[in-house]
Amino acid sequence: MLRFGIVGTGRIGDMHARLVAMQPDASVTWCFDVMEDNAAATAAAVGGRATTDVDALLAADDVDAVLIATPTNTHVEMILRSAEAGKPILCEKPIDVDIEKVEACRQALEKFAVPVQLGFNRRFDPSHAAVQAAVASGEVGALELLVITSRDPGPPPPRPILEACGGLFRDTTIHDMDMARFVMGEEPVEVFTMAANRVDPVFAELNDVDTAMIVMRAESGALCHINNSRRTNYGYDQRVEAFGAGGMVRSNNHRPTEMSRHGASGTATRDPLLYFFIERYRAAYEGEIRSFIDSVTARTPPRVTFEDGRRALILSDAALESYRTNKPVKVDYS
Amino acid sequence: MLRFGIVGTGRIGDMHARLVAMQPDASVTWCFDVMEDNAAATAAAVGGRATTDVDALLAADDVDAVLIATPTNTHVEMILRSAEAGKPILCEKPIDVDIEKVEACRQALEKFAVPVQLGFNRRFDPSHAAVQAAVASGEVGALELLVITSRDPGPPPPRPILEACGGLFRDTTIHDMDMARFVMGEEPVEVFTMAANRVDPVFAELNDVDTAMIVMRAESGALCHINNSRRTNYGYDQRVEAFGAGGMVRSNNHRPTEMSRHGASGTATRDPLLYFFIERYRAAYEGEIRSFIDSVTARTPPRVTFEDGRRALILSDAALESYRTNKPVKVDYS
Amino acid sequence: MLRFGIVGTGRIGDMHARLVAMQPDASVTWCFDVMEDNAAATAAAVGGRATTDVDALLAADDVDAVLIATPTNTHVEMILRSAEAGKPILCEKPIDVDIEKVEACRQALEKFAVPVQLGFNRRFDPSHAAVQAAVASGEVGALELLVITSRDPGPPPPRPILEACGGLFRDTTIHDMDMARFVMGEEPVEVFTMAANRVDPVFAELNDVDTAMIVMRAESGALCHINNSRRTNYGYDQRVEAFGAGGMVRSNNHRPTEMSRHGASGTATRDPLLYFFIERYRAAYEGEIRSFIDSVTARTPPRVTFEDGRRALILSDAALESYRTNKPVKVDYS
Amino acid sequence: MLRFGIVGTGRIGDMHARLVAMQPDASVTWCFDVMEDNAAATAAAVGGRATTDVDALLAADDVDAVLIATPTNTHVEMILRSAEAGKPILCEKPIDVDIEKVEACRQALEKFAVPVQLGFNRRFDPSHAAVQAAVASGEVGALELLVITSRDPGPPPPRPILEACGGLFRDTTIHDMDMARFVMGEEPVEVFTMAANRVDPVFAELNDVDTAMIVMRAESGALCHINNSRRTNYGYDQRVEAFGAGGMVRSNNHRPTEMSRHGASGTATRDPLLYFFIERYRAAYEGEIRSFIDSVTARTPPRVTFEDGRRALILSDAALESYRTNKPVKVDYS
Repeated sequence: MLRFGIVGTGRIGDMHARLVAMQPDASVTWCFDVMEDNAAATAAAVGGRATTDVDALLAADDVDAVLIATPTNTHVEMILRSAEAGKPILCEKPIDVDIEKVEACRQALEKFAVPVQLGFNRRFDPSHAAVQAAVASGEVGALELLVITSRDPGPPPPRPILEACGGLFRDTTIHDMDMARFVMGEEPVEVFTMAANRVDPVFAELNDVDTAMIVMRAESGALCHINNSRRTNYGYDQRVEAFGAGGMVRSNNHRPTEMSRHGASGTATRDPLLYFFIERYRAAYEGEIRSFIDSVTARTPPRVTFEDGRRALILSDAALESYRTNKPVKVDYS
Repeated sequence: MLRFGIVGTGRIGDMHARLVAMQPDASVTWCFDVMEDNAAATAAAVGGRATTDVDALLAADDVDAVLIATPTNTHVEMILRSAEAGKPILCEKPIDVDIEKVEACRQALEKFAVPVQLGFNRRFDPSHAAVQAAVASGEVGALELLVITSRDPGPPPPRPILEACGGLFRDTTIHDMDMARFVMGEEPVEVFTMAANRVDPVFAELNDVDTAMIVMRAESGALCHINNSRRTNYGYDQRVEAFGAGGMVRSNNHRPTEMSRHGASGTATRDPLLYFFIERYRAAYEGEIRSFIDSVTARTPPRVTFEDGRRALILSDAALESYRTNKPVKVDYS
Repeated sequence: MLRFGIVGTGRIGDMHARLVAMQPDASVTWCFDVMEDNAAATAAAVGGRATTDVDALLAADDVDAVLIATPTNTHVEMILRSAEAGKPILCEKPIDVDIEKVEACRQALEKFAVPVQLGFNRRFDPSHAAVQAAVASGEVGALELLVITSRDPGPPPPRPILEACGGLFRDTTIHDMDMARFVMGEEPVEVFTMAANRVDPVFAELNDVDTAMIVMRAESGALCHINNSRRTNYGYDQRVEAFGAGGMVRSNNHRPTEMSRHGASGTATRDPLLYFFIERYRAAYEGEIRSFIDSVTARTPPRVTFEDGRRALILSDAALESYRTNKPVKVDYS
Repeated sequence: MLRFGIVGTGRIGDMHARLVAMQPDASVTWCFDVMEDNAAATAAAVGGRATTDVDALLAADDVDAVLIATPTNTHVEMILRSAEAGKPILCEKPIDVDIEKVEACRQALEKFAVPVQLGFNRRFDPSHAAVQAAVASGEVGALELLVITSRDPGPPPPRPILEACGGLFRDTTIHDMDMARFVMGEEPVEVFTMAANRVDPVFAELNDVDTAMIVMRAESGALCHINNSRRTNYGYDQRVEAFGAGGMVRSNNHRPTEMSRHGASGTATRDPLLYFFIERYRAAYEGEIRSFIDSVTARTPPRVTFEDGRRALILSDAALESYRTNKPVKVDYS
């Protein structure tokens, strides 16, 4: 039985806590949040003590691992404090939006032998994972083209969230950058970005963009395209398509039912897509937690590493730099 | 170059004439209709002489074959006159709605060595034909379940047409009976029907039904279900599903485009289905004519025979008798 | 917090127990099974005491409701003992395979004011429920045709299970009979069945069938077709299609992923279907338990009643009688 | 009746000739080719005189319009000679692979009042045209993202054809450039390309590429992505996806049948895609010819102009330049 301390019980932390509690070999023993009511609500739902003192949680004997879901700008601090406390870590993405802080964290972590798994949940989505498995197995031959469609359902998040999120590339595209690395099985080495403000004036006011198209090249010559939007009216559009000499595999969107409608104005009409990440990636979030529990229990390395988080951020920064300079950017992972 | 006389140039005869004229190795030389304008219009579009005298057409040296598309109640007469004239025959379905007349025609035909192909066009539809080919090749193993969905787009045809058509079973279901025989590769031996009046009062006034469900059993134990309606609001619904130990194959509906729409009220919305037989079965009608030309040219037997027409009518009559008696009916093909 | 006693912790009881334990407002306090190890294993997974003494469970103060998942031939006894103990009941289908025993149970239950919900889980499947909701809302107009496809994945269950299950109609078709009543919103009044032995000799040895086609008529004239097989090679095939003047709605099959493959031998290839009821109807089983918890808590009537169980069995018996007599059977629900 | 002279009766010219001959209001009167046998074969199939002397065709009184399908490097000459002869022109794409020659042709054409329609057939494909119509009608709102997938089925064409074709961008991508302009309804103003050699060494030997990803920006900020490959193993992959605030519309691939297969190794398997342009775009080629006949007959401007051909070539050249310089290229249409 792996006993979790949940560090941060906002919307996403609460969801994680419930998924942990559902696992037969895991439980939640502590719930920390700076908002006392939040911590208490999650603790009531899943068990465990609520606290506003993260040190109490980290010092507790009955915490075998921590799940960090605090605001992004506290991730590095929470990672390091948890590492000092010797607790295996599952941390929400991104590590931070500032690559310097990430780099410093990486160096600081070197003195601890604590496993850190990063929350790129989409790797555990059954449909995307099936695409990656098909590519890894050689089913499509050497990968030639990878097309990632990733569009959030609208309207835009509240302005304070947008201000803190690091912008489209570091907040949203970072997931697609990780997906690209995951499916390609090699590193993108050059990135070019076109982007625009098409969705809502708030993005321009924040010196951010809301619509983007990226192309990337890997060492082998494999090419990748990502397109992003901050708003759809039909749900959360999440597709990955991998192409090579052996054919094409594709993960398509998920819907709440398999019902279709056929009438005078159209046929085969399906539901709008599942609304957003909590609904769409429920199986992925559960798979992520299972993988973490299994790797901590078996003392095997996590399947998504701190370094994966760092590299995805480097790619997101490259996409942003390309947009700002209107030039292709060579990626430096060192 | 096979030269056709078109016997009957109403809507369906005109369509056939145009398809004949498009074939590189066939032409239309004569067009007969009792309505002079009809004959003239078709002749103008496809070439050939227009006539209101069918004897002139049948006597003409430059007619190698006839295509009969006159009203159903004249089919038998036209078949026999064409046979007397020694012309290979492609005749629209049904032979007649009266099995006695069909039987008499069969006997009368015995003295002529003239090939007769019957117009069960759906056998030549690429999608249904692919289902039949898969079953015939053993891909699904011994056939166990066959489900045929066959629903006309509405509204109902004009009353005079309904009065002459022989009712739902002999007019519409007869196509599905032929499809069942075609895909099963054996004869249905027992039929049971439930039917209802749900679409329009005109059907009840004519002592006809507009909605039906049939189950049939073949000698091998294979079972077949047919469902019919005289009206959909989404186009011409035409599907065939064949099931056995080796799996399932299915022909799905056809639409004018492969475009889909995705919005707030639904996703993956496709066009309504192609409206009716002229649009939906265009490739099938062309395939039927190609097959006829090829078999006449090569002096091979037609792929759909007079006997196929007779047996489909016997099955349609059995379906009607079952509906009227509310009992399963054993089929007697003798 | 609704505290459950699980009566019967075989495969299906264990699944139910785990779903109960996942609900935030329910828990499992007792687990009964005649096999001590079974009871203990479930109790270890979900909490609660294990027992081989059902009386202890029924007498316990900390049991607010019971979930009955014992072998079918004990359902009636367990229902009545639970009712005597005053415990609200969620009982797996069927009530019994013998309509006389069901009738006796019904009369015996009259003296208890205990709610009984029957386990027709498919009513809670999101896809089928969406079809029913669309029909109930009038979206397709008055229902005219209902087509239910329901085929189990193979191979056949072990012989002892087959011997006890009551045969195809009472074991499998009964779910489809309930679905027909659920979607039609009225009672089938006449049933006709064709059936065959196509799958495995064991069914014939047991005087059972493995393949069936049924047609039914409701008072309004609406028609329903059900087709069943005991074996597919592509997973659990579960579809419901409802048709009327307003159009058609359809629930399609569920698969483990939304991935598709495109290669030289075929395109758009999807996974085989989810294997069987545990996988396919997981959401339905959870919805069933949620509905039970909600109705017990709110003291509202259960959404699936004992009478629903009785009527589905009457229809299954009518289907069997029709098969044996080769005649349509009028249904008597009195 | 519009009488056509077919200029060039290779594979594509022969196809055009047959489609012309099928139109009720058009005929083929002359067939020119430098290969006498080619000209004779087409003339035999569709009627008309065969000639190896293009001047005879252009001087003939019974030629109302010409269809140019000679090798690309003769298009400009044939256009100008046809214009001098006063014949309305339908010319296969591209005008030429050399923009200087195209520019000179444009200037030379100014003194003739002869309509020239360019052969961007895909604009007439029912599925792509439905996407364009939906965008033009405002159904998706202001266009934000356009994704064009365009992959040829393999293996590569013979080397001499590759040598003459002008390379991937001017031969293949030019169609996608036209599609982008068609659907966007505005001009791309900047282009960036990544490309690679992944398919066959012959492309590298010819200093060409076989795999490419392009991003483009229009004045409004709308973004477009094109991905190309010279080879798939599943048929001709041709998709267009348009996205905006109002939703998404998409044209999907076409297949020879609507049949699907369901078995142990996969479900919903469809045929490979239609193989290549002759099969996939048959309806488009016919629509293109219909549109030309209609516009010549009604003396309305052609729906695809010489200027459309020039601009698509400018975009293709920009894509090539971007690839060679690894920089985004601003497009100059002047």
